[in-house]
Amino acid sequence: MGPQNSYSVTPIGVVRSPYVSRREAPKQGPEAGGEAVIELEPGWSGALQGLEPGRYLWVLTYFHLADQPRLKVHPRGDASRPLTGLFNTRAPSRPNPLGLTLVRLLAVAGNRLTVCGLEALDFTPVLDIKPYVPGIDQPREAPVP
Amino acid sequence: MGPQNSYSVTPIGVVRSPYVSRREAPKQGPEAGGEAVIELEPGWSGALQGLEPGRYLWVLTYFHLADQPRLKVHPRGDASRPLTGLFNTRAPSRPNPLGLTLVRLLAVAGNRLTVCGLEALDFTPVLDIKPYVPGIDQPREAPVP
Repeated sequence: MGPQNSYSVTPIGVVRSPYVSRREAPKQGPEAGGEAVIELEPGWSGALQGLEPGRYLWVLTYFHLADQPRLKVHPRGDASRPLTGLFNTRAPSRPNPLGLTLVRLLAVAGNRLTVCGLEALDFTPVLDIKPYVPGIDQPREAPVP
Repeated sequence: MGPQNSYSVTPIGVVRSPYVSRREAPKQGPEAGGEAVIELEPGWSGALQGLEPGRYLWVLTYFHLADQPRLKVHPRGDASRPLTGLFNTRAPSRPNPLGLTLVRLLAVAGNRLTVCGLEALDFTPVLDIKPYVPGIDQPREAPVP
């Protein structure tokens, strides 16, 4: 009844962005500000139906260049900040290096989505796109800081 | 420079929940209301440091029982609603069947996290846990409905 030891995931597309090295990439989406393009595998274009510009989307990525996972990390890679548990951070060096970024959809043309707020490196694999749904994606009470 | 054809992901733990069949599982987290437990592989317990009860967390799961992916689905599986693009829905039958659920942490004890709002079936594999960060996980403008 337990889970398999592992599962296989297959990119549905890639990010095209101005960031070609980890040093250039901003730490989190909103700081990116600029635009990126998601190039979907053409076979998945039909699954975009109904997504209109202005919508917010979750983009799940695979951090293909992430370091080996660690149990503790410095928040935002800042060595002056005390180590904390990896799962208390958004650091990419995770057991499964999955990225989660909220983006705003600017345009859809065929298999290309132009989005705002995606911090990923050029050619980062994209695993999934989901609509942002306020009723399930926001805390119902104020989060504890 | 393109992505690999596939990547391997390895569960960091499993959900223990009252839902043993897909028919019983609620469609989305907040409807679950009740509690579930995430049993982490003991080796990852140290990565929980800093997560206190009351915090909101993203839980990324693998829908191990999902159907084959489809390009178009009826929202919430309701055949009376018109088909729409898969990426415009949160349906589990995705090319990479990854689940994203916002939960509230109720308790941590060793490798067990008790959470509220996790809709997953018993023994659903857990791939990642991330902190909810309002500054990056909320739209900066009102979403378009």
